[in-house]
Amino acid sequence: MNKNRVELFSDGVFAIVLTLLVLNLKVPSSHGIAAVLSIGPALAVHATVFGLVGVMWIAHHGALARVDRISQRALLFNLLALFWVTLLPFAAENAADRPAEPLGPSMLAFCYGAFMVSFLAMRLSMHSTIDDHAAMKAWRRTRQRIARSLVVWNFACAVLAWWWIWAGYAGPIATVAVFLALRSPPEAEHDFDQVAFAGSEGPSIGTP
Amino acid sequence: MNKNRVELFSDGVFAIVLTLLVLNLKVPSSHGIAAVLSIGPALAVHATVFGLVGVMWIAHHGALARVDRISQRALLFNLLALFWVTLLPFAAENAADRPAEPLGPSMLAFCYGAFMVSFLAMRLSMHSTIDDHAAMKAWRRTRQRIARSLVVWNFACAVLAWWWIWAGYAGPIATVAVFLALRSPPEAEHDFDQVAFAGSEGPSIGTP
Amino acid sequence: MNKNRVELFSDGVFAIVLTLLVLNLKVPSSHGIAAVLSIGPALAVHATVFGLVGVMWIAHHGALARVDRISQRALLFNLLALFWVTLLPFAAENAADRPAEPLGPSMLAFCYGAFMVSFLAMRLSMHSTIDDHAAMKAWRRTRQRIARSLVVWNFACAVLAWWWIWAGYAGPIATVAVFLALRSPPEAEHDFDQVAFAGSEGPSIGTP
Amino acid sequence: MNKNRVELFSDGVFAIVLTLLVLNLKVPSSHGIAAVLSIGPALAVHATVFGLVGVMWIAHHGALARVDRISQRALLFNLLALFWVTLLPFAAENAADRPAEPLGPSMLAFCYGAFMVSFLAMRLSMHSTIDDHAAMKAWRRTRQRIARSLVVWNFACAVLAWWWIWAGYAGPIATVAVFLALRSPPEAEHDFDQVAFAGSEGPSIGTP
Repeated sequence: MNKNRVELFSDGVFAIVLTLLVLNLKVPSSHGIAAVLSIGPALAVHATVFGLVGVMWIAHHGALARVDRISQRALLFNLLALFWVTLLPFAAENAADRPAEPLGPSMLAFCYGAFMVSFLAMRLSMHSTIDDHAAMKAWRRTRQRIARSLVVWNFACAVLAWWWIWAGYAGPIATVAVFLALRSPPEAEHDFDQVAFAGSEGPSIGTP
Repeated sequence: MNKNRVELFSDGVFAIVLTLLVLNLKVPSSHGIAAVLSIGPALAVHATVFGLVGVMWIAHHGALARVDRISQRALLFNLLALFWVTLLPFAAENAADRPAEPLGPSMLAFCYGAFMVSFLAMRLSMHSTIDDHAAMKAWRRTRQRIARSLVVWNFACAVLAWWWIWAGYAGPIATVAVFLALRSPPEAEHDFDQVAFAGSEGPSIGTP
Repeated sequence: MNKNRVELFSDGVFAIVLTLLVLNLKVPSSHGIAAVLSIGPALAVHATVFGLVGVMWIAHHGALARVDRISQRALLFNLLALFWVTLLPFAAENAADRPAEPLGPSMLAFCYGAFMVSFLAMRLSMHSTIDDHAAMKAWRRTRQRIARSLVVWNFACAVLAWWWIWAGYAGPIATVAVFLALRSPPEAEHDFDQVAFAGSEGPSIGTP
Repeated sequence: MNKNRVELFSDGVFAIVLTLLVLNLKVPSSHGIAAVLSIGPALAVHATVFGLVGVMWIAHHGALARVDRISQRALLFNLLALFWVTLLPFAAENAADRPAEPLGPSMLAFCYGAFMVSFLAMRLSMHSTIDDHAAMKAWRRTRQRIARSLVVWNFACAVLAWWWIWAGYAGPIATVAVFLALRSPPEAEHDFDQVAFAGSEGPSIGTP
């Protein structure tokens, strides 16, 4: 089964979720600067969830970029991962409408955790062109350790949110921060670029 | 007429329908755990319809993956199949808002049945690269028998829902279950993989 | 400028418009069979506009399939054509909410007419691979005459709707009917297939 | 990282934003010609924002068309640019619902300015095939000067809108007008076509 249509379909879902988030912003009834201030909390939730969906999309994009074929099993895990993505606009709507109620932030953290579990399951049921390169194994192990930590962190935040509401927001915000920090070192980016290159041109990394 | 844009367009419709389902989830007015419980039924409907659309998408994906060109007739049947898909968010909204009213579950089962009829008509008006392989004919016959049974089952459920409401929900749920059971045996998956392989590399199955 | 992204983008707009139409269907408040009857008019409008958008998409698909490159001018006409497409969900919402008010049906007919004018302008500013084939010129002339008649017909219906409301609905319905009738003769479909074939393999029609 | 999926995803976001704009048009409660007049202002806002998003999409399309690979940094800037695009339906809704309130028009101008800043940052972090052609450097410098002027203009309009509301609308309208004027000279279009040609066939411009 070729991966092209899976990418098309997944990108469609990500793009629509990203755009539906804006429906949570309601036209304020106040005037002038008061109107700007009244949409502040909803805008902050919007920006946070936008960042979270962006991080999910980049992870999804990266995983499929280095894979040739997709099995039925991986296809089902992909659908499961997308299920959690489609719940995000509802979680965001809860957080935007009632920021002080635990349901919204808890769902945000939970959906990210559940997405990552499905995503890692999908990743493990596919064989990537870089899996055989010795030089990439360390990099991949590091990334998977970070991914697993983020899963635990977000599930913990989803539970803690019911006692201390800011824990729910801490889950996604820390996830986006970790992701941005992870990408910044130029070395890592360069390594990653080589991988993408190898993926399209054949196994050329790690060969002396 | 090349199939690429038909896939693009159909994937767009599937992805949007999948994502619009979330608009049926309404922010609850209750607090704490009560808020979680109050969205339970709508979440269950959401998950069921998500599974149903996922099953439709995988079937659609599989059929087009092994086809080279699409005739005008197949294009029209494809549009008709998508028509029933676009009705699903409305059926799901009915079921989520009024779970005990027959309209929603009956429409869910009916739309799936009507989708499958249009989809089978589309499939029969296209010539697939695997149609000529003797080894694949048995597999294809089995699949078409299952598809026809699901059509009859869902139409029956759509009618019965007006007397016993759970029959409406039984249609899509059984459809998703049959699909997951059908896919689980590794032998079947392996066969299917070979087919996809043959589709992209030429007729190599069944030749001694 | 390659046509791939123009197709992607246009297909996205068509697919979203097609799916947004479902938002015009409102969950009825009545019960049992009465609920089915109460959504009847909105369902009829939904099916009509779905058919209309389907016809637009097939025309758009067909025109771009036989073109290699897209000029800036054609790109702007394409955007203009899409503008009228994005107005259709609003026109359909008017017709579904207030079927006896002329605004909805009149807008439906007007949007189709304006779409076709922009579409024909786009088509004329692109050079298609089939334009040079003598055998195709007659076919193309016939098609363009039909397209121009549909433009006049729909603009006339858009105006007449303000006196006799059914004229507004007659515009899109006749358009879909003409399109389906046009496609049915197997000879025409066969000719068309040859064209698509020639488009992908080089000029082979009309050469002895 | 190949650019194909970035285009898919971005086109999805643009197409959905373009189509969501129609949700800002509300079915009027008045009858006959009064109904047409009552939707006038919302239609004018719709057309303006549609034009603005169209201009953004053509710029985005043009930039990626002449690029081979996309770095992680460019990917993040692209996401940032899309963030401002997804805010546009909310800005448009504010303008359509309350045309005389500064929030809507000010946000429209601000979002375009912020989009262009992110877009220029993305463009500078990618290496395009035309960047090395001497003949193209002048053309590119001119375009970047215009882009920078539009950024300053729109940010100024976003601020001025709080004193004189029409300044907010002047930002996007002038942007669309500049864009259309910029594209009209046939010489410029011809130059641009050559560039696109060189992008797909190799460096052939400026070589004697």
